[in-house]
Amino acid sequence: MVGLLAAVEARLAEIAAAHGERLAEHAGATIAAGGKRLRPLLVLVAAGTAPEAPAGLVRAGVAVELVHSATLVHDDVLDAAPLRRGRPTVWASAGRGAATAAGDLLFAAAFSELACNDRADEVRALSRASSALALGELLQREDAWKADVPRARYLHRCELKTARLFEAACTLGVLEAGGSPGDAEALAGFGRHIGLAFQLLDDVLDVSGPAERTGKHRGTDLLDGTVTLPLILARERSAAVSAVDLRAITTPEQAEALCEQIAETGALEASREQALAVVAAAKEGLAERGEPAQRRALELIADSVVVRYS
Amino acid sequence: MVGLLAAVEARLAEIAAAHGERLAEHAGATIAAGGKRLRPLLVLVAAGTAPEAPAGLVRAGVAVELVHSATLVHDDVLDAAPLRRGRPTVWASAGRGAATAAGDLLFAAAFSELACNDRADEVRALSRASSALALGELLQREDAWKADVPRARYLHRCELKTARLFEAACTLGVLEAGGSPGDAEALAGFGRHIGLAFQLLDDVLDVSGPAERTGKHRGTDLLDGTVTLPLILARERSAAVSAVDLRAITTPEQAEALCEQIAETGALEASREQALAVVAAAKEGLAERGEPAQRRALELIADSVVVRYS
Repeated sequence: MVGLLAAVEARLAEIAAAHGERLAEHAGATIAAGGKRLRPLLVLVAAGTAPEAPAGLVRAGVAVELVHSATLVHDDVLDAAPLRRGRPTVWASAGRGAATAAGDLLFAAAFSELACNDRADEVRALSRASSALALGELLQREDAWKADVPRARYLHRCELKTARLFEAACTLGVLEAGGSPGDAEALAGFGRHIGLAFQLLDDVLDVSGPAERTGKHRGTDLLDGTVTLPLILARERSAAVSAVDLRAITTPEQAEALCEQIAETGALEASREQALAVVAAAKEGLAERGEPAQRRALELIADSVVVRYS
Repeated sequence: MVGLLAAVEARLAEIAAAHGERLAEHAGATIAAGGKRLRPLLVLVAAGTAPEAPAGLVRAGVAVELVHSATLVHDDVLDAAPLRRGRPTVWASAGRGAATAAGDLLFAAAFSELACNDRADEVRALSRASSALALGELLQREDAWKADVPRARYLHRCELKTARLFEAACTLGVLEAGGSPGDAEALAGFGRHIGLAFQLLDDVLDVSGPAERTGKHRGTDLLDGTVTLPLILARERSAAVSAVDLRAITTPEQAEALCEQIAETGALEASREQALAVVAAAKEGLAERGEPAQRRALELIADSVVVRYS
């Protein structure tokens, strides 16, 4: 497992270098910045006991991470975000044009990589997840600044924006391992749940801070007009929060103050509880499936998503 | 052939509708706006006599056109272009965020579509072309506003930004038709040449106008800081043009005036001649290859690229 993760890492570095200075400089920084590599890890664990020839598995992990990196680069362009994981974004260091193109390049590189597996079903799984990501991003832009985003709509957005790529990671792992449709179904559900919980907790963290943990200011979402669960719940609970027009929140200080107001309503705890319930559902769905070793590994991943935020 | 092109058209409309209101509204407008469908046509012609089961060929044509549409949507975001083919761009009507996501969505849809062909070599050809497109876009941003872009650099950019997708269109057609490596090689070269000529002539048209033909003002490239062959040649020929700093060109009137200056140097004729030479090379490369009917169809496409601009 560790060997395969290292292989994913090495291949990502190779891809960054293979596209020459441009990718190495721009998107390469995003790839290199690392992050948790949670999606490649899911690919590997979903595959169960390491197969004889793990090259395909490594490629699947690399492809999923490249799609993820591509969306990070594009999101930072759209949010005009100066920092990502505490480092300057591609947008900040190279500009809007270069960052948009760099995201496209990472996206194309993902499919180049996965195509080498000679499995159309894998390409289909990844491209569908990519479509979902883009659709989720579109919905988020549509919902921006709105005072009346329903919870169901927010959850649907999270599913598209985050859960589907986690689902695809699991699907790719199972497919590469030659798993049964039953295995694929169960693990796809696990991936979706974990992805949803991940997004819920990420949205809590944006409001709760602290900035040292996230590498960005508290309330970045609020400044972007992005309506997330903590705000939705706080609006239900507090007339004062409900009266706030997000368009009037234009400075980090105002965003910070609104974060405090949201926190005072208990909306953060409620959001966190909802995320924990989703994680619990993910674990339950595993039930008696697969080998105990694989189940334990998946449970560990589920827990790591929670621990990151507690 | 016409039947298959109609099938490509129908499938593109289906995809626009399948993604619901969002794509139908945003990127759907780009798909529907049509354009010449030159790339799907190349796919079909490269395949030669229509195969028994042309569904795969139609999917390849659709996929190539979707990648093309995706880059149009992203380019319009980067150029902040109000019009495309005389109609409002996605950027203009839906904003930067929606347009970036809509482009990503079209890109993902392309790979979803192609994956149904169950041919990893096809996915590889399309994803490599997509990487080239993004890389070309990156180089163009890097070269923006520069006074000293060498011709070779400009041609390399055209190859990446345009020629490679034309090449991929030919490759996909040959692959779907089960053609030999020799066929694939010859037709790939044809596609590359035609694509290069297409870009050269497009860049001439930006300077020559008239605006009624292009659906946008003369000198749009100049206002974006994009250095193309007419400007490069005019700089070599005229001290006055050479002395112009593109950053000082900020109004359509100034751009129009610079277009006149460029035209006076004869740089437009020289650029056009270079494009014609590339078209001639494309035709020569076909020589005695393939069936006469296919060769004639390819020559027609080559001529249509020239006619469009004369």
